[in-house]
Amino acid sequence: MFREKRELRIPGPTPVPPQALRALSKPLIGHRTSDFSGILERTTQRLKWILGTEGEVYILASSGTGAMEAAVANIVSPGDRVVVVVGGKFGERWSELCKSYGAVVDEIVVEPGRAVDPDDIRKALQSGGETRAVFITQNETSTGVEHDVKAVAAIVRETPALLIVDAVSSLGAIEIKMDEWGVDIVAAGSQKALMLPPGLGVIGVSSRAWQVIEKCKSPRYYFDLIACRENLKKSTTPFTPAVGMFFALDETTSMIEEEGLEAIYRRHADMRDMIRAAARAVGLELFAEDAVASRTITAIKGDGTFDVEKLRKRLASRYGIEVAGGQEELKGVIFRIGHMGYMDRLDMVSTWAAVELALLDVGYRVSLGAGVKAAMEVMARCEY
Amino acid sequence: MFREKRELRIPGPTPVPPQALRALSKPLIGHRTSDFSGILERTTQRLKWILGTEGEVYILASSGTGAMEAAVANIVSPGDRVVVVVGGKFGERWSELCKSYGAVVDEIVVEPGRAVDPDDIRKALQSGGETRAVFITQNETSTGVEHDVKAVAAIVRETPALLIVDAVSSLGAIEIKMDEWGVDIVAAGSQKALMLPPGLGVIGVSSRAWQVIEKCKSPRYYFDLIACRENLKKSTTPFTPAVGMFFALDETTSMIEEEGLEAIYRRHADMRDMIRAAARAVGLELFAEDAVASRTITAIKGDGTFDVEKLRKRLASRYGIEVAGGQEELKGVIFRIGHMGYMDRLDMVSTWAAVELALLDVGYRVSLGAGVKAAMEVMARCEY
Repeated sequence: MFREKRELRIPGPTPVPPQALRALSKPLIGHRTSDFSGILERTTQRLKWILGTEGEVYILASSGTGAMEAAVANIVSPGDRVVVVVGGKFGERWSELCKSYGAVVDEIVVEPGRAVDPDDIRKALQSGGETRAVFITQNETSTGVEHDVKAVAAIVRETPALLIVDAVSSLGAIEIKMDEWGVDIVAAGSQKALMLPPGLGVIGVSSRAWQVIEKCKSPRYYFDLIACRENLKKSTTPFTPAVGMFFALDETTSMIEEEGLEAIYRRHADMRDMIRAAARAVGLELFAEDAVASRTITAIKGDGTFDVEKLRKRLASRYGIEVAGGQEELKGVIFRIGHMGYMDRLDMVSTWAAVELALLDVGYRVSLGAGVKAAMEVMARCEY
Repeated sequence: MFREKRELRIPGPTPVPPQALRALSKPLIGHRTSDFSGILERTTQRLKWILGTEGEVYILASSGTGAMEAAVANIVSPGDRVVVVVGGKFGERWSELCKSYGAVVDEIVVEPGRAVDPDDIRKALQSGGETRAVFITQNETSTGVEHDVKAVAAIVRETPALLIVDAVSSLGAIEIKMDEWGVDIVAAGSQKALMLPPGLGVIGVSSRAWQVIEKCKSPRYYFDLIACRENLKKSTTPFTPAVGMFFALDETTSMIEEEGLEAIYRRHADMRDMIRAAARAVGLELFAEDAVASRTITAIKGDGTFDVEKLRKRLASRYGIEVAGGQEELKGVIFRIGHMGYMDRLDMVSTWAAVELALLDVGYRVSLGAGVKAAMEVMARCEY
């Protein structure tokens, strides 16, 4: 009906707020100007605050995977041993990236739906040779699981290994405190809780990481962090930045400042709790354990009585709600509801209402309103 | 006065047409949808036409330099010998990139303001060992010179070496015929004559290049062209594409179709001729020789009687016209007027009028209107 009225409940791209969309349509400016330098400084400063670091933050013209590649290309030299937590598709991405750069990869494979046991990381660091770095995914979107970066950091900090975190689907929704926890590098992207279209990669770099970066032998040019550092000293970037996206980043980081990080983290936790309560109320099983359930995406299992992919199609075509399916071996097994970025608790009510209606449409026996009621009951208890 | 009324006459970012700016502010869609696949197919097809190739074209979430890195990372293995034409800053970039990836680089250094003599490439290919590839810049924006890619291609095609062209500041303004001329890889970016903000890299790949790509030993993941190829078969991309930019690319490539390539190339040649005539009419010297003068950017020498950087500042602050200065050793020596993308012949009249007024402001003796008259006389003869 309304062609452009679609609600993105996928794990990115996520809805972009109107002030950011408007910013994207502003006429461009040159990037070697004091106006651009001002925006670069301001947005970088705000991202440092979001990351909880006095270290450096660089904003790349790339997707989040580009920021991940920047982390690997600047840290991993051929033959380096690295430990990678693999609990889903994005853990696998770290592993593939490290292998591309010639690392000897020790994978800690975590059962889907569970989080890594920090003790397993301790063991991996104690066995085997010297470890250059531990790679982990803060929020594994493929399964809807959060790994406990703080606990992992405490263990890694006992060793000389660096800790490198994929926060693509968590930054601005799930807390991270780089300096306080002892995280060395964080990679993120614009199209999740930073509320922007895809096209910016974000990388935070601790002071500790530079010693490794400066000695790293892997080839890199576009993603060379030393070039980023030298240019940022002059308030500029080594290559043409995605100027228009910075206008929008200026808007969304200002919105994040206004709402406050604690309030944002609470909002995301509340949205998770509402969706989980709703799913349970209609008799569907959750893929991730409660204790490690993602604040930005919830994976829900089909029960075999309906076609999960048909449910997704129905949700999109009839109700304008886009949710994600499972990836690879989880395709047809789970569907995933993204709740990250520019959305609020009330949006979860309408999202779930659509899910219930679509469930009915594809033949699942549901008492209409049961899940919505459960979500509302959670919402009534939310403090905000 | 009007804060957002600025005319970008720099070599990118360039003005973005209103229909593309509007497209950037459209609500996002998921990238794993048939709607996105449709846009991806359509824009890819149009870029193939612009590049003149039946080969493959990939659209990356990066700047033009990212596309250049993709070319190097997929072609150059450590120890490979390559020939690089260095006639300015962007030729140097090819050289730096190739060195980053461990190539043995044979540089053909060309005097700034001149184009490479194709015979020098023949000699470089005959001497030295087997050459993996020749790297050239179609339009060297740092000096305002066009290299003759067609003539160079004819020579390279006599050997097994690949020809790799940086068309970042030429694609959509200066003709390139990949298949007809025998060009193997072309790298380009969105923020020049494609009339978009920075944030998309474009890479065209001939069928001949794949044999080298498949055997290339350099590490790459984000810029891996094999992953691009396998995903494009399914009308998708390996990593999250810059979705919003595709909405705008859809608009600008459609505008290019409507205007027609021949008309676009003529428009750019006319704009060049107008600016060159105007500069000469007020007694300023041109940096590039006539025969090789760039159709997208004109470099003009100061004569020592005025401060070139002061002229640029005055042009921006008083007249809202942004032009570029010289880079590195050319800083303070030349200024550069970009005439690429969303602008037409009449815009050159107002651009030059501002230059004359600013010249007067900084103390250069100019008979007001002399250059404008010369530009108008060229325009009166333009066929369009």
